[in-house]
Amino acid sequence: MSETATLERAPEEAALATPFLTALVRLLRAQDSYGAWEKKPDAQLLRDFIVSKEQRRQIPIMGDPDPDVLWRVELFYTAVGLAVEARAGLIASPMMKMSHEGFGRVLLTAGRLIVLNKYLRDVHRFGFESLAKLAEAGGRAVDEAAAMIAAHPDVARI
Amino acid sequence: MSETATLERAPEEAALATPFLTALVRLLRAQDSYGAWEKKPDAQLLRDFIVSKEQRRQIPIMGDPDPDVLWRVELFYTAVGLAVEARAGLIASPMMKMSHEGFGRVLLTAGRLIVLNKYLRDVHRFGFESLAKLAEAGGRAVDEAAAMIAAHPDVARI
Repeated sequence: MSETATLERAPEEAALATPFLTALVRLLRAQDSYGAWEKKPDAQLLRDFIVSKEQRRQIPIMGDPDPDVLWRVELFYTAVGLAVEARAGLIASPMMKMSHEGFGRVLLTAGRLIVLNKYLRDVHRFGFESLAKLAEAGGRAVDEAAAMIAAHPDVARI
Repeated sequence: MSETATLERAPEEAALATPFLTALVRLLRAQDSYGAWEKKPDAQLLRDFIVSKEQRRQIPIMGDPDPDVLWRVELFYTAVGLAVEARAGLIASPMMKMSHEGFGRVLLTAGRLIVLNKYLRDVHRFGFESLAKLAEAGGRAVDEAAAMIAAHPDVARI
C-alpha cells in the first residue's frame, strides 16, 4: 500500500471510531440475520451511505424515493438516537413520516421532548461524500439532541 | 317531532357546541371546496365518525384500513390540536405514522413538546357511539394536551 493510501485511511478509521458510526454499524450488523456480512469490513457495510457529488447529480428527484434510501434515512436517525445514550443516559427514538416525492419529517423523541426535528427533502439523494462527512453529520445531530436533553432533562424523562 | 326526540337532541346540541367539535366541523367545512356540504347540518357532516357497537363488530380488522378512516383519525387529532389553542394560546400540530394492519402512533406537538402521544390500534374501527362520546373523547385529549403545555410552557414555546 502506498504512503498516500495509508494517509487517506486515517480519517476513515477515525470516523469509524466515532460513537455515531459505531452505533450505525451495530444497527446494520443487527439486521444481518444470516451472517452474510460477517466478513465485510465496516466501511463496506456503510458504502451505500456514501454518494459523491457526481453521483448525486445523476440521481433523479422525481417520483417516490427508493425504499432502500428511506431505510437508510431511518437507520441514520435511529443511530443518532442510540449514540445519544452515551452522552445523555437515555435513548431517543425516531418517528419518520414521508410524504410523496421525497419530502418528509423526522423527529427524535425522548420522553415528551422532541430532541431533534428535521424536515427532509430530496431524500432520493440522501448520502454523504465520505465516511468522515457521514460521521460529522451524525455527530452534529447527536450534539444537538444531547444539548436539548441537557436543557430539558425533566421533559425528556417523563 | 315527539317529546322524546327533542330530549335526545339536547346532548347532541351540547356536544356540537364544544370547542373540540366546533374545530372538527370547521376543518371538515374547510375541505368542502365546491360547497357541496353547505346545506348539510353539522351532525350530518360528522356522521362517519359515529360507529355503533353493532357496526364496530362488523368491520373486519384485517389488512390495511380504509384511507377514509385514516383521514378521519388525522382530522380528529388535528381538531384536538386546534381546540388546544383556545386553552393554551398555541396550536399543536399532529404527526401520524401508520404501519400496516391498522397499528400506528400519533403525536401532537407544540414547539419541542409532545403534548399528546397516542398509540393506535384497530384503526379500521375508529369511531364513537354518539356525538356526545366523540365530543367527550376529543375533549379529554384537549384537556391532556393543555395540561402538558401548562406544565412545560417553555418547551412548548421553543
